[in-house]
Amino acid sequence: MAEEKREGREVNEEEDQVVNPWEVSAGDGGKIDYDKLIDKFGCQRLDDVIIRRVEHLTTRPAHVFLRRGVFFAHRDFNDLLDSYERGEKFYLYTGRGPSSEALHLGHLVPFMFTKYLQEAFKVPLVIQLTDDEKCMWKNLSVEESMRLARENAKDIIACGFDVTKTFIFSDFDYVGGAFYRNMVKIQKCVTYNKVVGIFGFTGEDHIGKVSFPSIQAAPSFPSSFPHLFSGKTDLRCLIPCAIDQDPYFRMTRDVAPRIGHHKPALIESLFFPALQGETGKMSASDPNSAIYVTDSAKDIKNKINKYAFSGGQDSAEKQRLYGANLEVDIPIKYLNFFLEDDAELDHIKAAYAKGDMLSGQVKKRLAEILTGMVERHRRERAAVTEEMVDAFMAVRPLPSMFD
Amino acid sequence: MAEEKREGREVNEEEDQVVNPWEVSAGDGGKIDYDKLIDKFGCQRLDDVIIRRVEHLTTRPAHVFLRRGVFFAHRDFNDLLDSYERGEKFYLYTGRGPSSEALHLGHLVPFMFTKYLQEAFKVPLVIQLTDDEKCMWKNLSVEESMRLARENAKDIIACGFDVTKTFIFSDFDYVGGAFYRNMVKIQKCVTYNKVVGIFGFTGEDHIGKVSFPSIQAAPSFPSSFPHLFSGKTDLRCLIPCAIDQDPYFRMTRDVAPRIGHHKPALIESLFFPALQGETGKMSASDPNSAIYVTDSAKDIKNKINKYAFSGGQDSAEKQRLYGANLEVDIPIKYLNFFLEDDAELDHIKAAYAKGDMLSGQVKKRLAEILTGMVERHRRERAAVTEEMVDAFMAVRPLPSMFD
Repeated sequence: MAEEKREGREVNEEEDQVVNPWEVSAGDGGKIDYDKLIDKFGCQRLDDVIIRRVEHLTTRPAHVFLRRGVFFAHRDFNDLLDSYERGEKFYLYTGRGPSSEALHLGHLVPFMFTKYLQEAFKVPLVIQLTDDEKCMWKNLSVEESMRLARENAKDIIACGFDVTKTFIFSDFDYVGGAFYRNMVKIQKCVTYNKVVGIFGFTGEDHIGKVSFPSIQAAPSFPSSFPHLFSGKTDLRCLIPCAIDQDPYFRMTRDVAPRIGHHKPALIESLFFPALQGETGKMSASDPNSAIYVTDSAKDIKNKINKYAFSGGQDSAEKQRLYGANLEVDIPIKYLNFFLEDDAELDHIKAAYAKGDMLSGQVKKRLAEILTGMVERHRRERAAVTEEMVDAFMAVRPLPSMFD
Repeated sequence: MAEEKREGREVNEEEDQVVNPWEVSAGDGGKIDYDKLIDKFGCQRLDDVIIRRVEHLTTRPAHVFLRRGVFFAHRDFNDLLDSYERGEKFYLYTGRGPSSEALHLGHLVPFMFTKYLQEAFKVPLVIQLTDDEKCMWKNLSVEESMRLARENAKDIIACGFDVTKTFIFSDFDYVGGAFYRNMVKIQKCVTYNKVVGIFGFTGEDHIGKVSFPSIQAAPSFPSSFPHLFSGKTDLRCLIPCAIDQDPYFRMTRDVAPRIGHHKPALIESLFFPALQGETGKMSASDPNSAIYVTDSAKDIKNKINKYAFSGGQDSAEKQRLYGANLEVDIPIKYLNFFLEDDAELDHIKAAYAKGDMLSGQVKKRLAEILTGMVERHRRERAAVTEEMVDAFMAVRPLPSMFD
């Protein structure tokens, strides 16, 4: 079995941009070079042919995140579609490290997309809350990590997942039994040198970090969920995630055939940029770098006006003369994620680029859209009861999933 | 908190004897130097004062393994007895790596002694079967490791433990929940460099080995068993084990105060010597190095006659003249473990040393004793039903344990 391409170390390389599960930063270029990343990681670009294929197989238009290249890279997604076309179901696996109480818009992106995939392909979904990871990496107690996991589960449920098709679990709660046995099988296939190569651990890192990759890998294998799939252990798995998680799943894909499972397929997204510009992911330590689902309409308006990096000119006069540089303009990038109306987006981009629209007008429209989104999210979240959380997190068969 | 003394590397040192959980071999001296080991590990010798204290507190004679120095070293056993004297109960924790179908006599030693401790102190006991360890270190499948764990559980139960005071668990079966959360707490306190220092792992070892020490550490803390002790999480723990397991528990004792628990106390035994002589532990790969509980009377007689290293002279005539060297004589050493009658043992030793007894006579008596032991064990084991195994391994409160 050929090893996944480019298993090399992603950190401390000569190349200037750094992308791994704990750090995303653009190099001297000032923005992430995604083409370079695809080359470096050895995944494939998600092209129009695949997008049309998805539309054909699901008989619905592709999600805006597909059409606009937010999910832009993949591994074996075509093979997964082949098997789906032959009538084989698969399941989705995504996750979240519950490090903060309030989610920001970037956190919602994979869940919005996963909800679309679940609906479009009519497949079950497992969502891993890695409270153990956050306890190990951040200075959080077990109890606080578990509390955050449950709070985050409410935000995830508010995205609209179907409880009959979705199992949400926290590692501290669920790890054990078949899941633990798979962890050990995975660990046996991965040397310390290997995880150092992939993740850049040092001898001063604690041993929990060293073995953690097996915990994020385990949900890629249906046998980790003996209760879930009516005993079907040969299901394929599709993982939607941001591309910084790719190292975990390259490792997982190397291990898969050695423990008798399919390699999981991946569909990978860009990073959602910080308000200050596309130099990396948003920083949890700077609340002004992101719009949170807890922000008020006024917060949103102020943050966008004050912090959103603009590609427009610095006076209305110059803007009318020279137009805006859309390549670096954060309001345009955010609209690209969240303004679903293609015609309106095209109009704004054209007018803004020519100078017919001013920065302030674009920002105003963005604030309207994000306020609507965030308020809708808050309404949905307020309707999530403890009983609903219990229902999503109950260890149970997903009924008649594969009939 | 001062670090446990002598955390240094136990393997590949200049000193010639090697003792760690995976390797025990005497150096050029030809036998294990236990005094050196006590110094090196930094534990204490178990002296007559402590033994008399045990007799006083338990109001029964000390076990033969205590009287004869089979259990010869300890950590904080006196402190544990102090708290016991004040009326605080503790629990016992021992374990086994289920690597082979049939146990040999050396395997029974810690269980025989643990049974005595359980009865004498009237305390609960947890027994960990590290099927995950054996799956990781030996080339065993998960399923085969779990099967061996259950088979070994039957041998352990045959030693006569009280089901109302004993919880036996296999890691592959039980790890999860509170146990897993303790594993993570422990892992956070132990760096990779630390486990390399203690256990001598290399970069080519897999990541399961690297984090395994946390799994053997976790049962030292009562909070790993929330069902067991009626919510009492401040219990002390006493671990009877062979001294090669000391590195695990030095690590555990360093971690304990950092996660809010008492350091476990230890009571540590000599290695049970191979028939061929006291150069190390018995080797599972050489069936003629040990007496197995499955051996017939004839097997036992033959093995002793053929393989048991003798300190007697090589002819009856010379033996009558010069007597035997008891220091290296394996039949005498075995009798020291298993012949309970002090008077008879003293008589045999004196007569044999003087030349009044011949090697053959000592070996004959040993064969009688071991055959009786082994046949008794087999009868007890045959009486162990699957229902009894289920009862010992059921996750349950140990009723009225601390009333």
